[in-house]
Amino acid sequence: MPSLRVAAAQLNPIVGDLDGNVDKVVAALGEAEELGCDLVAFPELVITGYPPEDLLLKEGFVADAFAALERIAAATGECVAIVGTVVPAGTLGLQVAEPTDARPMVGRRVSVPRLANVAAVLARGRIVALVAKRLLPNYAVFDEQRWFLPGTGPHPLFRIAGGIVGVAVCEDLWSANGPARSMAEEGADVIVSLNASPFSLGQEDERRGVLSARVAETGASILYVNQVGGQDELVFDGGSMVVRDDGHLLARAPMFSEHLLIADVEVHGSTDEITDAVTELSATSRRVGPAIAGDVADPLSPEAEAYEALVLGTRDYLGKNGFTDAVIGLSGGIDSTLVAAIAVDAIGARHVRGISMPSRYSSEHSRSDAEDLARRLGIKIDTVEIEPAHAAFAEMLSGLLGHTPVGLTDENLQSRLRAVLLMGFSNDTGSIVLTTGNKSEMATGYSTLYGDSAGGFAVIKDVPKTLVYDLCRYRNARAGISGEVPPIPEAVLTKPPSAELRPDQKDEDSLPPYELLDPILAAYVEADRTAPELVAAGHDPALVERIARLVDIAEYKRRQMPPGVRITTKAFGKDRRMPITNRYRPDLGDR
Amino acid sequence: MPSLRVAAAQLNPIVGDLDGNVDKVVAALGEAEELGCDLVAFPELVITGYPPEDLLLKEGFVADAFAALERIAAATGECVAIVGTVVPAGTLGLQVAEPTDARPMVGRRVSVPRLANVAAVLARGRIVALVAKRLLPNYAVFDEQRWFLPGTGPHPLFRIAGGIVGVAVCEDLWSANGPARSMAEEGADVIVSLNASPFSLGQEDERRGVLSARVAETGASILYVNQVGGQDELVFDGGSMVVRDDGHLLARAPMFSEHLLIADVEVHGSTDEITDAVTELSATSRRVGPAIAGDVADPLSPEAEAYEALVLGTRDYLGKNGFTDAVIGLSGGIDSTLVAAIAVDAIGARHVRGISMPSRYSSEHSRSDAEDLARRLGIKIDTVEIEPAHAAFAEMLSGLLGHTPVGLTDENLQSRLRAVLLMGFSNDTGSIVLTTGNKSEMATGYSTLYGDSAGGFAVIKDVPKTLVYDLCRYRNARAGISGEVPPIPEAVLTKPPSAELRPDQKDEDSLPPYELLDPILAAYVEADRTAPELVAAGHDPALVERIARLVDIAEYKRRQMPPGVRITTKAFGKDRRMPITNRYRPDLGDR
Repeated sequence: MPSLRVAAAQLNPIVGDLDGNVDKVVAALGEAEELGCDLVAFPELVITGYPPEDLLLKEGFVADAFAALERIAAATGECVAIVGTVVPAGTLGLQVAEPTDARPMVGRRVSVPRLANVAAVLARGRIVALVAKRLLPNYAVFDEQRWFLPGTGPHPLFRIAGGIVGVAVCEDLWSANGPARSMAEEGADVIVSLNASPFSLGQEDERRGVLSARVAETGASILYVNQVGGQDELVFDGGSMVVRDDGHLLARAPMFSEHLLIADVEVHGSTDEITDAVTELSATSRRVGPAIAGDVADPLSPEAEAYEALVLGTRDYLGKNGFTDAVIGLSGGIDSTLVAAIAVDAIGARHVRGISMPSRYSSEHSRSDAEDLARRLGIKIDTVEIEPAHAAFAEMLSGLLGHTPVGLTDENLQSRLRAVLLMGFSNDTGSIVLTTGNKSEMATGYSTLYGDSAGGFAVIKDVPKTLVYDLCRYRNARAGISGEVPPIPEAVLTKPPSAELRPDQKDEDSLPPYELLDPILAAYVEADRTAPELVAAGHDPALVERIARLVDIAEYKRRQMPPGVRITTKAFGKDRRMPITNRYRPDLGDR
Repeated sequence: MPSLRVAAAQLNPIVGDLDGNVDKVVAALGEAEELGCDLVAFPELVITGYPPEDLLLKEGFVADAFAALERIAAATGECVAIVGTVVPAGTLGLQVAEPTDARPMVGRRVSVPRLANVAAVLARGRIVALVAKRLLPNYAVFDEQRWFLPGTGPHPLFRIAGGIVGVAVCEDLWSANGPARSMAEEGADVIVSLNASPFSLGQEDERRGVLSARVAETGASILYVNQVGGQDELVFDGGSMVVRDDGHLLARAPMFSEHLLIADVEVHGSTDEITDAVTELSATSRRVGPAIAGDVADPLSPEAEAYEALVLGTRDYLGKNGFTDAVIGLSGGIDSTLVAAIAVDAIGARHVRGISMPSRYSSEHSRSDAEDLARRLGIKIDTVEIEPAHAAFAEMLSGLLGHTPVGLTDENLQSRLRAVLLMGFSNDTGSIVLTTGNKSEMATGYSTLYGDSAGGFAVIKDVPKTLVYDLCRYRNARAGISGEVPPIPEAVLTKPPSAELRPDQKDEDSLPPYELLDPILAAYVEADRTAPELVAAGHDPALVERIARLVDIAEYKRRQMPPGVRITTKAFGKDRRMPITNRYRPDLGDR
């Protein structure tokens, strides 16, 4: 049987950086050409980076992206390049489906873009064809129907090195009875799938399952290429792979890093049952030398996946936005400890600064635990007592309120004074402030607006508190294996969580124990269950009512949080679009 | 010719408040029944409030909304009620179009809702029919394809008091050659249009134009009913109307308030050319007494529209979220002055508190202008010098930085100390902090994160600075007409804008004059032009480059701003979804 040498260029583009992304594509293309590949596939929308969001509403941006595509096309030789980008509907005769009814939008002041999310097939210096994405996800973090119209008509197929190749963009591969099946029925024996598929816990298993199902359904081999890297709240894990038509995993790229994955794939080379016109690109394979079986990277544990996602998401948010250094308020608590460890893994100890800011209520151990952490990580730590500012504000507020600030007012005050100090340091040095709130706190509003939630990037905002502990243990275990000093002080793992904003305060004074809280939050927030449904499922009604109310009324706080890495199937942010003004409080019945 | 008595119930629902919204609907229904109406129409999704956003992903919420619909149905008598709500696709045989390809989502962890946005036709105690919205807007602030599937099949028609009535939900009326035309061709001579159409400047004229065009296209009379009230960033202006089949405006409700608009509409009563099954609801009109011509409310000037939108948006955000009182940092500048005037018009002078917080750089006139404003508005004002906190932080930061904070660090510091004070007052009293930044500042990042931008509601965040002046003059002119004291001190209108964060600072030290800045911002932000396009249109290249860069790099700040009232065709927030990480900097060429 003939075989193709295929490559998946798992790249880390930057949104909007058309020139930089072209350079990355052209470099990988050159390498694939050099290595005798017959085709090299790039991620979805690799020229613009994914997701370009409302940059797509700028006609000038779309025109510039097309010029970038032409530069890549000009760089192609014998190796066929399949590159994700955006084009206006109708470019080169590209077919898209118009909406249900005609919408000339007569007299409307809001114009709706007529664009397509395409795979461009390039060879020998020119654009051979554009293939439009058909299934446009418009759920979860995806808004593709905001910008794109779906592809329609027969599937373009390409004969490359004797194989019949079909092209699917992301979602097109994920549906059963969808475009992948159609193109296989029309004759494809290799499906090239361009993706920008963001990470969430368990996504890698799901992806492997979908690819197996699709191979079984279509009888085709699949070359799956995914973007890698962080983009605001999203992190893309890569995990590109080649699955043979019998379901065998030929090759898999490592997660969370750029990689050019190469494998030789046997094809039937049959022309039977090919119903549509096939574009001839090459008759025989260019490959030289021995067959390449492809490398299969080991899968990661769930904790390793989550930790690496947080590290890469943080590194890229900082790097792509021009920050070299970060500053963290170190309280000696487990959240700031984990954030510091992630930051050091992301940008290096030399670039991370800790500031300990004890108040009159801080315990001695918070100071010593923070110092122990800094020693273990090798980062510089300063200590600034907030008492002078605390005293000044107590005085100023007393005059205004007619009494000394107490209770929540005083607790929030301390938290905000720390934020003012950190932001002053940030303004003076150019370091970004990393905030340390976890998802359980974000959910319940157990944080101070403009206080501990203030900063440029909220590293662990999508990590539930129970997982914060797991990730700390994972990081220490990894250190144990490699022989480095475990970064997380044991005391931090064992002491009860506390905000230390009043004497002897513990989280459990205000919140249920995290082992009880987190499963209810997962059901209420991530699985969209209502309070009565949770009660019906056996949870304590008083507890459910209290937690649901906390989550609902904290929406205004979450709206003002910095972005952070999404690692679950539903993060706060553009993944969960709840109204702030929301009076839905379903009746929990008699009890 | 027979005629129908129709009513448009322009209501102000609260998102999620199913019981409260049902009460409002039932009360208006009773009134319409009483007044001899043949039909009464309610806004789109009036049962849930619009937009319910991801509440729609909760199956329990959708089920509760259906139970609410059944309660309304039970309250109907002879007057037909047409009520907007959400139902699962397929309820009562409701036809919707499935997506392009079948999407069983095998093995997917994210489920996509199968819902319809419907007009429910209710009469004599039961649900007669459900009519699904066909055109689902997914642009600007709209995400309807995230939740709904489009209606399909022939248009259900209803014979009411001898007229043939078709039903359109919002967007279905806005398109030429769309559903409105089809239902007229199938026989409708009255089109009932349920809307939740948010306000923006010029929207009322556009709406009137669309209705005229649709009447001309269809030859049908149109009963247009719109929601009124504020919901987070959106404000709905009402402006419900009845347009006769010859284009004559029979009746129009006032903008920005609840209203039951009633008019008698003549119909042909012909059964010719009716191609589809028509549901018979009533043979003759219930109306008694003399014919009702309907009232036509006067249109408002653009400044009046904008001002009223800001007042209602603020009143509803506060009221619907349980705030009775507001606090504003009064600097004596024009932005805080306008915000205070709006707040007083929204919730009353007794509920608004001003705090003047001079620093070592504040001029004497900022203090006296703030006091003059407070006197004119009749609000209480306190003065708290921030010097003690400023001195404390200068000392604390000096120790940390190795030098006294200067420049931007010191400017931001002062702004943040004021925020700490305001938030302390808010925490102690339960008042909401209203922020005072305008759109020109939001756009260029001319604000301090966690400083002047900190608060619960950003009243004028979508008002460009030049319009801030116009609205102040408008408000004073209105006062002149009604004989009240003009609320805006003349000095505030004439002195040059300044942040007063360093000696002799003026806005024009950092920004171009607002008369130059605002048109460029409108083109760059609202019209999505690129920098090279602005240069090609004749703007100064250096100025364009500077402004574009300011706008681009301030995205991270805007992401952490509180919500505020949208009054333009593109507000920051969910209307403009730009990536923070964004390297698009198109080349401006040689110059």
